[in-house]
Amino acid sequence: MMIENQQGDSALTEQVIASFAGTPDARLRILMQSLVQHLHAFVREVEPTEAEWMGAIRFLTETGKMCDDLVRQEFILLSDTLGVSMLVDAINHRYATGATDTTVFGPFYIKGMPERAYGENMALTPGSPVVVRGRVLDTDGEPVAGAVLDVWQTAENGMYSGQDIAQPHGNLRGRYRSDSEGRYAITTILPVSYPIPTDGPVGRMLGATGRHPWRPAHLHFMIDAPGRRKLVTHLFDEDDQFLESDAVFGVKPSLMVAYRDRPANDELARQFKLAGPYREACYDFVLDRS
Amino acid sequence: MMIENQQGDSALTEQVIASFAGTPDARLRILMQSLVQHLHAFVREVEPTEAEWMGAIRFLTETGKMCDDLVRQEFILLSDTLGVSMLVDAINHRYATGATDTTVFGPFYIKGMPERAYGENMALTPGSPVVVRGRVLDTDGEPVAGAVLDVWQTAENGMYSGQDIAQPHGNLRGRYRSDSEGRYAITTILPVSYPIPTDGPVGRMLGATGRHPWRPAHLHFMIDAPGRRKLVTHLFDEDDQFLESDAVFGVKPSLMVAYRDRPANDELARQFKLAGPYREACYDFVLDRS
Ligand SMILES: [Fe+2]
Ligand SMILES: [Fe+2]
Repeated sequence: MMIENQQGDSALTEQVIASFAGTPDARLRILMQSLVQHLHAFVREVEPTEAEWMGAIRFLTETGKMCDDLVRQEFILLSDTLGVSMLVDAINHRYATGATDTTVFGPFYIKGMPERAYGENMALTPGSPVVVRGRVLDTDGEPVAGAVLDVWQTAENGMYSGQDIAQPHGNLRGRYRSDSEGRYAITTILPVSYPIPTDGPVGRMLGATGRHPWRPAHLHFMIDAPGRRKLVTHLFDEDDQFLESDAVFGVKPSLMVAYRDRPANDELARQFKLAGPYREACYDFVLDRS
Repeated sequence: MMIENQQGDSALTEQVIASFAGTPDARLRILMQSLVQHLHAFVREVEPTEAEWMGAIRFLTETGKMCDDLVRQEFILLSDTLGVSMLVDAINHRYATGATDTTVFGPFYIKGMPERAYGENMALTPGSPVVVRGRVLDTDGEPVAGAVLDVWQTAENGMYSGQDIAQPHGNLRGRYRSDSEGRYAITTILPVSYPIPTDGPVGRMLGATGRHPWRPAHLHFMIDAPGRRKLVTHLFDEDDQFLESDAVFGVKPSLMVAYRDRPANDELARQFKLAGPYREACYDFVLDRS
């Protein structure tokens, strides 16, 4: 009887798949039918109790309710912590063209942040001063002038402006532009490792599964230029303790930078009006053709 | 290079699965690791664009936001319309003991509804009068006395009280009790087919996939008695036009009843104070041992 009923289960799956056969949009039909196939396979494999299934319904409901219209997007955090965001990222960047590797977008981006001059300091809160600079190139090694580099990072307290209402507007965010030789320069503070928000369902999931919520220190970049494929990536601090266990699986070896000590008052310090010693990281971004 | 990157995808999946290896609760570890395996397999199969993945994030977020604390549970509707609720139901009722078949619980149950006497009318809004009656038995055919039958159905407008705030408290809901011989009787109105709510993400999904939102007319039962396994089921009207295409895949042949015409003023009509002709459906429920 057990076996008979299990055949009944797959008859149900077939019935649900068939219910989507009339979907007018062929792509949506494929998405829904594949979703049903894999979701049912998962359910058949783990055989959830009714209480477990209601627990999953509650978890998803609370995940939706945790989202706001600003920077808290708990479903992106869930996708990130289950490695799905990085998988979607990998699928959409399969071809090796020599362009810079991509990584997760994350939930903390805000549109329309201040335009900033070459080398401008985007840090309005304290920290260890750094300059991040380099060039934006195309896959032939030619400079890309006028690329917009939208940059964001957390303050020393591990929170992004917008997420932490105590921070001034635009803190540690900004849109830089590459110059005629493709050069960009950002004055900011050294990024710190930070935990993803743990006060919601995703935090509870990490806690219950013995996973930590930390991300290695990084600077977010979204780089856009006419005729180029938009690049979403991070630069990671190569000295960070969480590089091997990023809560969202975003680290790639090609995205690490070293922050090297620079003496006080050298030429760059004078150019960017830095008082005292600072550090510098250099990175050239390579954009694909769109 | 394509192939190399696809191997990269499965390395990512292995890394995510490994991140759950330290989950203290063994059952939770199995659930999470299987979820990651199947979710990643789905993503690898359909290769969503980044826009499609963001669409899924938005869909899930809106589904969570659509839920309230009362009777609107959009994730249950999603589970129902994807056939997952019926699959979980099937998995949890695999053994053939002769007990009554189960079906979906649905999102419209409300706890603590009025206790009602044998044959009491639970309809406070108009409709075609019916009596539903029969016995509650155990799997040996012995009557189960004192079983609580928690019953709910929609009004003629297709809405449940609680969902439709215009309906009086407790309308078409109630807790009946089987008598010393296991008998129960409910006076109510003929259930109607109704569409599940279509003003949220699940309704949009049904619309976009060419599926209708209708459920065949039914009466919900949750039946509980000491030492018995709680039974969650429906009784369907065997004449309904949507029996073959229930939006939530809940129909089972064993759960159909006929509503037979009864003359005005017969013995039952007098007993239950019914004026005019009415209909009657008879059904015996069989409870499993718990
Ligand atoms: Fe970040
Ligand atoms: Fe219903």
